Amino acid sequence: MANLGVEIDCLEGIKIVDFTQFEAGPSCTESLAWLGAEVVKIENPLTGDPGRRLAKPGAPDNDPWYFHQFNANKKSLTVNLKSPRGLEIVKALLAKADVTIENMAPGTIERLGLGYDEVKKINPGIIYCQVKGFGTGSPYEKNLAFDMIAQAAGGPTSVTGEAGQAPVKPGPSFGDTGTGMLMAISICAALYKRAKTGRGRRLQVAMQDAMIHYMRVPFSRTQLSGKAPPRGGSARSQPGGLVPSALYPCKPGGPNDYVYVFCSRANPEHWQRLLRVIGREDLSGDERYDTQNARSQRAAEVDEIISAWTRERSKEEAMKLIGKAGVPAGAVFDTVELMADPSLNERGIMQTFEHPTTGAVKMPAWPVRFDGSPAKVKPSPLLGQHTAEVLRGWLGMSAAEIDGLKADGVLGK
Amino acid sequence: MANLGVEIDCLEGIKIVDFTQFEAGPSCTESLAWLGAEVVKIENPLTGDPGRRLAKPGAPDNDPWYFHQFNANKKSLTVNLKSPRGLEIVKALLAKADVTIENMAPGTIERLGLGYDEVKKINPGIIYCQVKGFGTGSPYEKNLAFDMIAQAAGGPTSVTGEAGQAPVKPGPSFGDTGTGMLMAISICAALYKRAKTGRGRRLQVAMQDAMIHYMRVPFSRTQLSGKAPPRGGSARSQPGGLVPSALYPCKPGGPNDYVYVFCSRANPEHWQRLLRVIGREDLSGDERYDTQNARSQRAAEVDEIISAWTRERSKEEAMKLIGKAGVPAGAVFDTVELMADPSLNERGIMQTFEHPTTGAVKMPAWPVRFDGSPAKVKPSPLLGQHTAEVLRGWLGMSAAEIDGLKADGVLGK
Repeated sequence: MANLGVEIDCLEGIKIVDFTQFEAGPSCTESLAWLGAEVVKIENPLTGDPGRRLAKPGAPDNDPWYFHQFNANKKSLTVNLKSPRGLEIVKALLAKADVTIENMAPGTIERLGLGYDEVKKINPGIIYCQVKGFGTGSPYEKNLAFDMIAQAAGGPTSVTGEAGQAPVKPGPSFGDTGTGMLMAISICAALYKRAKTGRGRRLQVAMQDAMIHYMRVPFSRTQLSGKAPPRGGSARSQPGGLVPSALYPCKPGGPNDYVYVFCSRANPEHWQRLLRVIGREDLSGDERYDTQNARSQRAAEVDEIISAWTRERSKEEAMKLIGKAGVPAGAVFDTVELMADPSLNERGIMQTFEHPTTGAVKMPAWPVRFDGSPAKVKPSPLLGQHTAEVLRGWLGMSAAEIDGLKADGVLGK
Repeated sequence: MANLGVEIDCLEGIKIVDFTQFEAGPSCTESLAWLGAEVVKIENPLTGDPGRRLAKPGAPDNDPWYFHQFNANKKSLTVNLKSPRGLEIVKALLAKADVTIENMAPGTIERLGLGYDEVKKINPGIIYCQVKGFGTGSPYEKNLAFDMIAQAAGGPTSVTGEAGQAPVKPGPSFGDTGTGMLMAISICAALYKRAKTGRGRRLQVAMQDAMIHYMRVPFSRTQLSGKAPPRGGSARSQPGGLVPSALYPCKPGGPNDYVYVFCSRANPEHWQRLLRVIGREDLSGDERYDTQNARSQRAAEVDEIISAWTRERSKEEAMKLIGKAGVPAGAVFDTVELMADPSLNERGIMQTFEHPTTGAVKMPAWPVRFDGSPAKVKPSPLLGQHTAEVLRGWLGMSAAEIDGLKADGVLGK
């Protein structure tokens, strides 16, 4: 019986006015929505969050997938921020909000008249949050940033790739979502305190600075060696490093048919167990291989001993057998395999919602389980879907007033 | 004047009994400590958290660097969990705690007599947290996991590397810290609700599932194409993709002398601005290059046009000039450069503390600024440094009682 997720009520009652777009900001507010907050995306009536539409200009909108991933469980309100009445309405929403957050280009929110000083006047108790590419005071403060820029300037790219080759950007958008998560922690902690004190806060994070938070193992290696760590790649164990610690090729030899196998220094038993799994007990006690130090001198030989076995197995079989023996092992699963994975679907880590225009949308849920269940994933909003609902609920506006504002072009249709 | 960080009081008064080790767990509790919680590491008297000592067995302890990075601002209490009196003391601490968290191998905490059901009996209001490699109910539930295993089994490795080549593990330990951050968000949200209801919770996250959270852009590309996304690498723009979107080589040609340059589809001006910076206004209006679609057909040519300019500049100069022109650009900074970066140090994103045995330790602070300042970074604890302080403060034990327990081997010396 599949776990369909549950409503998490932790942040019930928290109102968030959300000006974010693309991913670093939306990933943050989506996590808060999954935990129960009411997140209202403020969008322009014409096109909304540019993340809604990654398709080529002029082409039919066949690419709503990115938007769904980062905007589940949210509401959408469309308003023209450049009209005085529109700005007034948003200020009235801000007066009722607990949190507001934006990740526009540097200077934009201030030009809209919604900078920190303005909003603080309207609502001194608000938690006002900003995500930028570079920190206030950085020489790059005014520069634009996207995920790949943050991953370059904050370090991750420098440590990713094969030894002796050009650096490679880590594939996942850690620069965006990795930043959004740090802001989400800070917002929840600020909310906890504010419940007692009523005090507002200004929270700011830069994507470059956030990447540095994820670079602490490489920093610790630099502190030991004085040098920038060489890129390790991981298709091969590195002479001088822990051996084995590499990706081993599996049947049938497709682009992702590999299994990562690792023997820790802390547990010499890993190697002995591995020898049993691969039927090479004959090497147990062989001083050429029996310690990390010895194997470290013979990385290529050790890799070949292991590969000779993995090449005859699928990655799933290799992971299962090696893992079961108490040796850390992980198959390289790709997106198609993960989306179809029975366990991820049964456990509610992958959930499917029905969207009015897209149809069935499968996506990952918030992966932390609360009392056994992940949060229920609900559809991302249509552009302006909740305009009337939010203005009625938060501001007590009448249907006639809302209709008038729509007719005047202050609100989206 | 350097920003030295401030005490963040958001989680002031929150008591955390912390059984975590290495990184996925410690990165979570460290973030809570930075935000004001009192985090007490429960360590075995002999060696403590195995992350304290990554040096080769038998060698002098010349590698405390990893431990410092993930245990700043915490306390350490040493107790023998296998002695009945030690277990009793830890249970008394759990009775007083708001949160407890562990990331031991599957089954270990239960064997210690500190599983969820036991602890819930002692303290029904506690937030009980567990980090494992694989989820309860997964076929790999009992398997061990480390960062590289999570990054393989959760997808990141499958999308990292150069096109047509073997996959590569992303260099940073996103599998560990990326998991810890999702648990930290969940804990803070649970604390917010618990302040009103007093209700305890059980929170569980698996590292594989956490990695899937960071894989949502690749999932959205699979939803569009039906296929697992090819690895893009990023040393070259990809034909058919956005062009330019690549790392360009800079002077003097060292392993990290590259700058990432990106022109967004949403803003055709990026390309025009880039042409001006690189002195190729002659190509403005040239239909071979003027649109993303056109450039996408000529990725290698476009890369060469840009490289001809970047090769004559340092990465810092290239980033500065291109970024200033309003085009997203990021130099590939390495760990040595980031640790020495004047802006990161002045802004308090890098801070230095004095440690009693290691001396000066520089490390990144929590990167989110609260009212303008990051959290102050304080030294990681010596093994057992706070045993007496915590037992006095939390349990009211006398100095004589504590000395007796030390003499009996229940507490560390």
